[in-house]
Amino acid sequence: MITKASVSSIDIWKCEQGKISIEPCADLLATEEPLEIKLIYYDNWQIVEQSIAVTMRTPSCDFELVLGFLFTEGIIKDFSTVKNIKYCTRNREGNIVKVEMQKDANIDLTRSQRNFYTTSSCGICGKSSIENIKQIACYELSLQIPFFQAKTILGLSAKVKDAQTTFKYTGGVHASALFDASGELILLREDVGRHNALDKVIGAMLAQHKLPLNQYLTWVSGRASFELVQKALMAGIPCMVAVGAPSSLAVDLAREAGMTLIGFTKENSFNIYSGEPRIIF
Amino acid sequence: MITKASVSSIDIWKCEQGKISIEPCADLLATEEPLEIKLIYYDNWQIVEQSIAVTMRTPSCDFELVLGFLFTEGIIKDFSTVKNIKYCTRNREGNIVKVEMQKDANIDLTRSQRNFYTTSSCGICGKSSIENIKQIACYELSLQIPFFQAKTILGLSAKVKDAQTTFKYTGGVHASALFDASGELILLREDVGRHNALDKVIGAMLAQHKLPLNQYLTWVSGRASFELVQKALMAGIPCMVAVGAPSSLAVDLAREAGMTLIGFTKENSFNIYSGEPRIIF
Repeated sequence: MITKASVSSIDIWKCEQGKISIEPCADLLATEEPLEIKLIYYDNWQIVEQSIAVTMRTPSCDFELVLGFLFTEGIIKDFSTVKNIKYCTRNREGNIVKVEMQKDANIDLTRSQRNFYTTSSCGICGKSSIENIKQIACYELSLQIPFFQAKTILGLSAKVKDAQTTFKYTGGVHASALFDASGELILLREDVGRHNALDKVIGAMLAQHKLPLNQYLTWVSGRASFELVQKALMAGIPCMVAVGAPSSLAVDLAREAGMTLIGFTKENSFNIYSGEPRIIF
Repeated sequence: MITKASVSSIDIWKCEQGKISIEPCADLLATEEPLEIKLIYYDNWQIVEQSIAVTMRTPSCDFELVLGFLFTEGIIKDFSTVKNIKYCTRNREGNIVKVEMQKDANIDLTRSQRNFYTTSSCGICGKSSIENIKQIACYELSLQIPFFQAKTILGLSAKVKDAQTTFKYTGGVHASALFDASGELILLREDVGRHNALDKVIGAMLAQHKLPLNQYLTWVSGRASFELVQKALMAGIPCMVAVGAPSSLAVDLAREAGMTLIGFTKENSFNIYSGEPRIIF
């Protein structure tokens, strides 16, 4: 098992009040390294090995990241179709992960998110992006249920603080967390890429056969983009709580899918952009 | 000319002190829409039209974004090789931009960043990422010059505030700015994607034939990732000032290239992660 540190040590110069430190001093950074995802699958009885993506990530929970990525991209539908997942032994850096699929796994890369746009003839716009997500999503959100208490939402940020260990040391990573309806923290993952952090959360639950995540909410440390809402929707998560602002397309997708989307979440306030009936006061 | 708003209006519910607003109220969001970049070029006397990328962006300065993207990816080397750039008229959403290259433009997509990893046989790691950037970068940074005053760095955040118009209304976009050595703001661009904001800045200067940007520094509103440092390096920018933390690989690349990298920039303090001799106290 290859493990890399998610935090790197470095010497830096600090400038305060217009003066520079005399000696360089030690500092901690969030590690960023490329990760290549390779898929090995059968296509008409022929074994195919294909590089699917390279993502810049913070090393830790790499297999969860890979599983979450493949699932939220619509490339794999179920954890049982995965035969094996391991680091490529020829790559001593631990930056290539190979996912071997079962013989009967039906892999259709043309349905992957990233391939969609360039093969679509309908023209590219927010509407076509949303339409595509609806086509590849496995789960539908049931309207309204589950319900979440407003006070639960307000208490989330305090609960994630202790779990954000990499952030505590570096101030340089995003986080995604999963909470149940009572506000209990199920798990939290960190990464320099906010989409990676959510993929790690979803991949961890996929590997535990716990999808769809229709009884949970996800908390994200930054803004809510279209991509994050899309990933949550793929996993059947009915509610996303973001610390920052959502984008227009994130709100459009959440409304279309019936997802509750909350932003600008502070200790005493938040904004509801979509799915307001799911929140109880 | 197709123009779209970078800000979208929406009705939301506000929750404060555990109470929800009685009526939904108006709010402004940063617009997020896909943009497809298509390249039309000659390959062995044959015209080829190829979709290069789809990026989720905030509409505004689309042509600058496209030019900056193509340049920082190493796909185009010079603005003079671009014959024409326009919106695809069949796409009424204004979300497809076509770039027509001159007949003698030498387009080599295999050198593009995104293609590199999967064709590399040397194994994937941070070192190979840095090696690749060095291979495709057009400009070398000269050591030390230009110099920047510490007080100039400390004054940057105050100067960008007024120019961040989309952020002012939405709180939901990143920004990149270009300053000269005296601290004068040259231009600022905003986008939901921080890499897009920097591409817009670089594309704007490319279209004015002002590359390399070796007399400027760039300010970025968030954290400094490998990708941002790489883009700045492609444009020959000798200094990056980030509001947030840099990643380990961003620092590695900046040190390897001789770029000054500053992070955690506040009104009274900042950290120097690389290229400290370029800063004068």
